[in-house]
Amino acid sequence: MAGEKGKVCLAYSGGLDTSTILAWLLEQGYSVVCYLANVGQEEALQIGAEKMIIDDLKREFVEELCWKAVHLARPIIARGQMKAAAATGPARELAFYTINPEIKVIAPWRDPTFFNRFQGRNDLLDYAAEKGIPVTSTKAKPYSMHSTQLTWKAHCSYEAGMLEDPDVTPPEDMWTKTVSPLKAPDTPLDITIHFDKGIPVKVITPQQTATDAVELFGLLNAIGKEHAVGRIDIVENRMIGLKSRGCYDSPAMTILRLAHISLEGLVMDGRVRALRDLLSKQWSELLYNGSYFSPEREFLQPSLDHSQQRVNGEVRLRLYKGNAYCLGRKSNEKLYSEEDASMDSLTTFDPSETSGFITINAIRLKKFGLQKAEAGIEF
Amino acid sequence: MAGEKGKVCLAYSGGLDTSTILAWLLEQGYSVVCYLANVGQEEALQIGAEKMIIDDLKREFVEELCWKAVHLARPIIARGQMKAAAATGPARELAFYTINPEIKVIAPWRDPTFFNRFQGRNDLLDYAAEKGIPVTSTKAKPYSMHSTQLTWKAHCSYEAGMLEDPDVTPPEDMWTKTVSPLKAPDTPLDITIHFDKGIPVKVITPQQTATDAVELFGLLNAIGKEHAVGRIDIVENRMIGLKSRGCYDSPAMTILRLAHISLEGLVMDGRVRALRDLLSKQWSELLYNGSYFSPEREFLQPSLDHSQQRVNGEVRLRLYKGNAYCLGRKSNEKLYSEEDASMDSLTTFDPSETSGFITINAIRLKKFGLQKAEAGIEF
Amino acid sequence: MAGEKGKVCLAYSGGLDTSTILAWLLEQGYSVVCYLANVGQEEALQIGAEKMIIDDLKREFVEELCWKAVHLARPIIARGQMKAAAATGPARELAFYTINPEIKVIAPWRDPTFFNRFQGRNDLLDYAAEKGIPVTSTKAKPYSMHSTQLTWKAHCSYEAGMLEDPDVTPPEDMWTKTVSPLKAPDTPLDITIHFDKGIPVKVITPQQTATDAVELFGLLNAIGKEHAVGRIDIVENRMIGLKSRGCYDSPAMTILRLAHISLEGLVMDGRVRALRDLLSKQWSELLYNGSYFSPEREFLQPSLDHSQQRVNGEVRLRLYKGNAYCLGRKSNEKLYSEEDASMDSLTTFDPSETSGFITINAIRLKKFGLQKAEAGIEF
Amino acid sequence: MAGEKGKVCLAYSGGLDTSTILAWLLEQGYSVVCYLANVGQEEALQIGAEKMIIDDLKREFVEELCWKAVHLARPIIARGQMKAAAATGPARELAFYTINPEIKVIAPWRDPTFFNRFQGRNDLLDYAAEKGIPVTSTKAKPYSMHSTQLTWKAHCSYEAGMLEDPDVTPPEDMWTKTVSPLKAPDTPLDITIHFDKGIPVKVITPQQTATDAVELFGLLNAIGKEHAVGRIDIVENRMIGLKSRGCYDSPAMTILRLAHISLEGLVMDGRVRALRDLLSKQWSELLYNGSYFSPEREFLQPSLDHSQQRVNGEVRLRLYKGNAYCLGRKSNEKLYSEEDASMDSLTTFDPSETSGFITINAIRLKKFGLQKAEAGIEF
Repeated sequence: MAGEKGKVCLAYSGGLDTSTILAWLLEQGYSVVCYLANVGQEEALQIGAEKMIIDDLKREFVEELCWKAVHLARPIIARGQMKAAAATGPARELAFYTINPEIKVIAPWRDPTFFNRFQGRNDLLDYAAEKGIPVTSTKAKPYSMHSTQLTWKAHCSYEAGMLEDPDVTPPEDMWTKTVSPLKAPDTPLDITIHFDKGIPVKVITPQQTATDAVELFGLLNAIGKEHAVGRIDIVENRMIGLKSRGCYDSPAMTILRLAHISLEGLVMDGRVRALRDLLSKQWSELLYNGSYFSPEREFLQPSLDHSQQRVNGEVRLRLYKGNAYCLGRKSNEKLYSEEDASMDSLTTFDPSETSGFITINAIRLKKFGLQKAEAGIEF
Repeated sequence: MAGEKGKVCLAYSGGLDTSTILAWLLEQGYSVVCYLANVGQEEALQIGAEKMIIDDLKREFVEELCWKAVHLARPIIARGQMKAAAATGPARELAFYTINPEIKVIAPWRDPTFFNRFQGRNDLLDYAAEKGIPVTSTKAKPYSMHSTQLTWKAHCSYEAGMLEDPDVTPPEDMWTKTVSPLKAPDTPLDITIHFDKGIPVKVITPQQTATDAVELFGLLNAIGKEHAVGRIDIVENRMIGLKSRGCYDSPAMTILRLAHISLEGLVMDGRVRALRDLLSKQWSELLYNGSYFSPEREFLQPSLDHSQQRVNGEVRLRLYKGNAYCLGRKSNEKLYSEEDASMDSLTTFDPSETSGFITINAIRLKKFGLQKAEAGIEF
Repeated sequence: MAGEKGKVCLAYSGGLDTSTILAWLLEQGYSVVCYLANVGQEEALQIGAEKMIIDDLKREFVEELCWKAVHLARPIIARGQMKAAAATGPARELAFYTINPEIKVIAPWRDPTFFNRFQGRNDLLDYAAEKGIPVTSTKAKPYSMHSTQLTWKAHCSYEAGMLEDPDVTPPEDMWTKTVSPLKAPDTPLDITIHFDKGIPVKVITPQQTATDAVELFGLLNAIGKEHAVGRIDIVENRMIGLKSRGCYDSPAMTILRLAHISLEGLVMDGRVRALRDLLSKQWSELLYNGSYFSPEREFLQPSLDHSQQRVNGEVRLRLYKGNAYCLGRKSNEKLYSEEDASMDSLTTFDPSETSGFITINAIRLKKFGLQKAEAGIEF
Repeated sequence: MAGEKGKVCLAYSGGLDTSTILAWLLEQGYSVVCYLANVGQEEALQIGAEKMIIDDLKREFVEELCWKAVHLARPIIARGQMKAAAATGPARELAFYTINPEIKVIAPWRDPTFFNRFQGRNDLLDYAAEKGIPVTSTKAKPYSMHSTQLTWKAHCSYEAGMLEDPDVTPPEDMWTKTVSPLKAPDTPLDITIHFDKGIPVKVITPQQTATDAVELFGLLNAIGKEHAVGRIDIVENRMIGLKSRGCYDSPAMTILRLAHISLEGLVMDGRVRALRDLLSKQWSELLYNGSYFSPEREFLQPSLDHSQQRVNGEVRLRLYKGNAYCLGRKSNEKLYSEEDASMDSLTTFDPSETSGFITINAIRLKKFGLQKAEAGIEF
């Protein structure tokens, strides 16, 4: 009987998996309170949830996570992590335990009662049909789709089904957040993005200007979608050690990342950047593996934050048929100097001083060369 | 008098700088033997060089350097290094000293006699005009252009002049190795690249197939140029600590790099890849700073080579208006398994076993959470 | 009945745990074949094992593992890993699965039938008494002791019991491989160790010379024990995320490590060493966590091996009351030059050239200083 | 005439080098103001300095630098860096340029007028004798000695002269901050050190207690000297690429470092520590190479500082004849739990859950094993 086993809170997304799990939990005797982002609530109550807690995490997601993630080293990881932040699975569960060590987590997908009964997508679809659960997945769309908490607009990921063969090209109609590059406008769109301490604070397009974090993020997603920017198709390494092929479309983050690294190139000291890249890579892996709420991520954060203090300025970008290009960048920070960069007016140093620089740097290398020569080894 | 100061060997490129230096060395009393790759010889003899040594390094460059560089972590560095390999400057000079510790290098650009006389591009152009030196640079093209040793076709870099303002968009006619994305064909080109131990061994386009290293590289440069793939515009950190804006077009390496990482994702163990990325980054910086011939680069090489043993397979790509997309990849290596990746048939492990995996991984994180809770700190 | 459940192979050490497990497996209905290193066989047959396979892994352990581990970055990890290599537990089990993916492992300590019955050391001791199992642990020695496969002589680790309080000083009579520093001879012992490609190949003491790997290792353990060298007492981080206090005495490895790093300082290029340290740290953690047989350890090995090619020479050491000191080191390798090191005869470079070296290195730092000054920030 | 060339500020140490330089600067026509720490002033005025600025940097040195350096990864670097902080040379000069980009540095040792005249130690000694400069170095003590700014008591370094042969054992009477281990007391000294956020705040010996930073540092140097703790003899890699043999005695820092890592083991999360070690290594190299005042060191600092927030507790140590041993450590921080560490009462997790942990961790390794097996490769 529903409720006899007590009450559980279900992180509900409105998709096939969580809809099925909701029905199944009820069948097992739990009463269920659903928690979700800002969409899909009607279905849950319809299936039998006792209550809906609807939480609008858009702003928190954009401001707390996306802005921090924008300085990540590699687009592959940058997008993968978005998925991790949203997906059920080991990664997310670790975060629950950290934030509330006393929590008790029910994970149907590793409960034999559940996984022996639902051995594949088709079983889920059959059950949904039987229970009258409204689902968007069908046997005809043989892959699984997850939007982030912000089903709203952040990005979308696709996996499983036909995508499991890494040599199968994703069908054009799979992508929901980007049009096909072949169908994008023939006219490029030039925009400008302003950053303050590494945070995007203004986006200017010929038609509009956005400064609010959520609005700005949405604008970039909209124009990125139109110009087909942000598709990715990779084979990832899951936390549990299996490889998995995943596709993502993530226009806003793709554009922001290009703009951000273009500005950093101008204003960040070269050695700081090399060290920052090292830390960003660790940060990305932690996020990807569900260890955002961990002592090691907290350890990395202060230096990463410090690195953004002077990432101030603006970047001009062109969006065109699947790609974004940096057209120019400027800043009031002082590390780059047109005069220094110029061969025509070297006032920073006397060129003859590089002789000493080279001679000293060569001391060690000459010894290496001599050692080789004496051993009769050719380079 | 020419020759009174002895004979020098000039690494001659045929550009404005080395042409001027050739004339100036003669004026200073040296007799000059020019060394260059496979182009430009007539001009040198015309200016007054005693002899031309023409060396075709295409194959060596492609097989020794490009194939090793293809597994580099970041496109930015990957292209920057090509420049370093070719440019005169501190980086290159270090390599000379290592290979031949007894060598004596004459560097006019840090000799006051030279740099006080030629204080900028215009002085060089005036001198070239005065001496009847044929040059392609003009006062109307206010930037400097370097192709690699293989002016032939490898790639091209542009810097200085108007490019010194990082906010100036490069003029469209600057780019020589790529057409404008806006002028690329409306029809995409789908190709396949085969790799053997990480080395590209075959490129198949609808029209032709290339297997020879030099031919294959040239084919990729040709189709990449046509489809506008490979432009980059960045602010770099030079070895001497100055920032410098550089533009590159490098179609073949851009395409190869995408293909290569797509295949690695399929066949390389995830933790090997994380460690390999760390080493590749070090390797890139060494190459960029002219330390290819160094003990530390030699130290990194064996493990990097080892990582490529199983990078065997093929990748299908689409080139379209400035971008390359991975359409699919396959391999006979066994790390990826369609069955494992599938949620529908988990035979590798029993889903219930992930409970223990999560519980154990959470031990440390729960302690962290408790520590925070006791201190009254919110996540 | 013994044997009804089939035959298992037990990795038998002769200690309390494996002796009890042997008896318990028989009780559960297995017939048991014991596998062990070169000691303790009589007891196993006496308890009821069907057969003893006695394997002398001394040479393999010393030559394959210890010689590779000698270039590890930190003594703390270096010793911890020895334990991992020998201990039962998650680390070791991972190696079994890698080497033979089809293997079936029985782990009594996580089988409720076993761990509910034997809830602590006292239960094990009672059972041993009841079954007439000869054991060296007693209730009076309230800690657990593990020697490596080579109970023979490699080293010894101690944990649990009274050691669980990290503020309790280990009792003097706990240590079995080292005398107390307070009881070591008043006369120091000076020895010489020769290395060939990073491998110790000769140890010379005033009394004897050893060149065979096993003999040499044994000699170092013997003289290290006499002079009290090699005790360690640390709190470690176990693979499963728990902290654990462990004590080790490991004379031979402690002496070898000091000798090895002293020689490396003389013959290894500084930047190679910095990168090697980075890789050694990763290698240590893999060994510690039971991932010696892993693709990532295999990836690291070739470069680590390469780094040892020129680690040739000899080191003089003094052992005295708990410590080892380097007295001197020499090598025929050429990186160190007495002439270069001397301020009295600088022939490698002209001191005035360091001006240029400093000026160029300062370019970047001056910009940083100016940036601070303009912002009104004091250093 | 003294003064005609203007006034310079000399970083004066009272040793042979700076005393000679003082006399030589006067001879060259400069008037000289000397700056130094808290000792040696009489000599400078006697030689002819116009003024003495005496600055007591003890507290700043101990609190700003030593306390930060105590969490460095390797004793070798930890001590080397102290030298760098004090020595004249490229490292120190870089710091001057950063702090005051407009500064003009006179470096006699790379001025041909100076280095051609003084070609070695003997020339300096002869000049000192001729000018009546009081020096402690003599031809009979053929090595050079530098104490840090705090000649007072921080530590001492020795190099050059007979030490240039790395196989020569330093003479016993060279060491000034430590007695010989052979002459240290037969009775060990047990002490306790308290830390607050990683900073040593109290040292308790049987005779006294120190809490003031300078006093505490001095006390550790005094008892460390008596018990012969803190000698080191290594071959280092100088910033300019040369190897150099250096000896150091640094009792206080040696003792503090052992205490600090012992406490960190107890209270710092294992993964935080692994990442911290990576950053500490970079920090050490920056300090060693004179880049303390650099953007990259400032980048690393916030995370390193963060790591010390919970390094609170106390450590008991024994000093005895050249060595320091950790006897025990305790803290109110919660990461270590005696109950968890105990095999007798595992309440944190059910041992059977490690099965799942191992199974999942083995997924990737089994694939690796299968791949090897199919290729017929033995481990």
